[in-house]
Amino acid sequence: MIVELITIGNELLTGKTVNTNASWIADRVTRLGGLVKRVTVVSDDIDEIASALKEALSRKTELIITTGGLGPTYDDRTMEGVVKALGLKLELSEEAFNMLKSKVGDRALVPHVKKMAYVPQGSKALLNPVGTASGALVMVNGVKIVILPGVPAEMKAMFEAYVEPILKEGAREVLYDVEATVVNVYEADLSPLIDELLKLNLKLYIKSSPRLEEGRSILKVYIAYRSQSIDEAREGVEEALRKLKERVKSKFTQALFQV
Amino acid sequence: MIVELITIGNELLTGKTVNTNASWIADRVTRLGGLVKRVTVVSDDIDEIASALKEALSRKTELIITTGGLGPTYDDRTMEGVVKALGLKLELSEEAFNMLKSKVGDRALVPHVKKMAYVPQGSKALLNPVGTASGALVMVNGVKIVILPGVPAEMKAMFEAYVEPILKEGAREVLYDVEATVVNVYEADLSPLIDELLKLNLKLYIKSSPRLEEGRSILKVYIAYRSQSIDEAREGVEEALRKLKERVKSKFTQALFQV
Repeated sequence: MIVELITIGNELLTGKTVNTNASWIADRVTRLGGLVKRVTVVSDDIDEIASALKEALSRKTELIITTGGLGPTYDDRTMEGVVKALGLKLELSEEAFNMLKSKVGDRALVPHVKKMAYVPQGSKALLNPVGTASGALVMVNGVKIVILPGVPAEMKAMFEAYVEPILKEGAREVLYDVEATVVNVYEADLSPLIDELLKLNLKLYIKSSPRLEEGRSILKVYIAYRSQSIDEAREGVEEALRKLKERVKSKFTQALFQV
Repeated sequence: MIVELITIGNELLTGKTVNTNASWIADRVTRLGGLVKRVTVVSDDIDEIASALKEALSRKTELIITTGGLGPTYDDRTMEGVVKALGLKLELSEEAFNMLKSKVGDRALVPHVKKMAYVPQGSKALLNPVGTASGALVMVNGVKIVILPGVPAEMKAMFEAYVEPILKEGAREVLYDVEATVVNVYEADLSPLIDELLKLNLKLYIKSSPRLEEGRSILKVYIAYRSQSIDEAREGVEEALRKLKERVKSKFTQALFQV
């Protein structure tokens, strides 16, 4: 399943907040067999949100997840941005409003609070088990758009309740991965060996990250394999590891190889 | 100065790495008076990099900063993506190659290593004071594109050497900000007061973030002001703080207000 994330919030663009929502979701999506193709970060601005969503829809995306901008304040405008992009209106979700009343009582009638129960026309409200702002699931030409809050605890609970089932249903591939460490080999010397392995198998992904420590080169080598079968993925990783280790050992006598 | 970041790397899209480069740069740009309008994260794929860059150029962006994908390995393809977007070729930078030789000696002639001294035709190579991969500064129709490595220590050193002067030259505004804490007031009750203040002054930015602690509502209120003058910005924040405090105190008798 091809996935894009749109993470919304001025605080992400001023550097006040590190975008851990994006990495948390990307990790979960990857482990569930989805492929995150792009993450876009935009401000709490209706036009910016709308244009990011339209662009994601124009690509071959199957699932779009947005986070942020669902609260009661002036600058929580994600639902407005979504309906602007899709040419829809907002409507009060009976179900979301009832949940809001059960949580905050008569305060649910205050306009700023009631706002949190509005969702795009024809969408399914996604009730928030932790907080008060509802999310929504919108379907557009077979593309699923899931709108989640930005507060991490709320986002995570809703991801597990509503997004995981979509990914599991749509999963065509799983990922198996390991990390190895290669000591005393420079990245530029290792990379032709990695290239050779990558050319042999398109499902394989290998990435090295260098670090110098007291003059010694230390490379972390991340090896991952995507397949419809977890057994094939594990075998793919193990074979790559085996071959890489053989080649490293035969080419660099001083090399250390650890998994 | 309107800025966009394009952060490149598969590890950002699988959640292996949290995008701290984006937040570090966004923080620096903001403090230097720039406005980060968008962050895009794409994989180490030439077409993905090229399309993200073309899209950023199609918006009203004055400075585009890319990070990642400059190393010696197979999947370090940022320079190729950039020249694909711009219809240019890569050329060997004499200056970058000399630096490479001074750092790694004859190993600079190995193709995988030499690759790190190639930059887009007609661009300025940005020498890396920490590592071996050179960056580049490309000018396209008055838009500056700065290509930086993804290794944080290298990225930071090069940001300070090459990007800060561009931002300082282009700075039209500075930012002044504070964070206040309001206890015993719900976010939805505070937000009409914030809205009123925001309507009075377009240079002002206020954002509240809620937290419940032992049943008490605790709101962090971030107040920032952009101006060409730091004195005006400080005065703007202080006035907003004063007014917000007055209104909170007069409306909510149990409220606590701390700066």
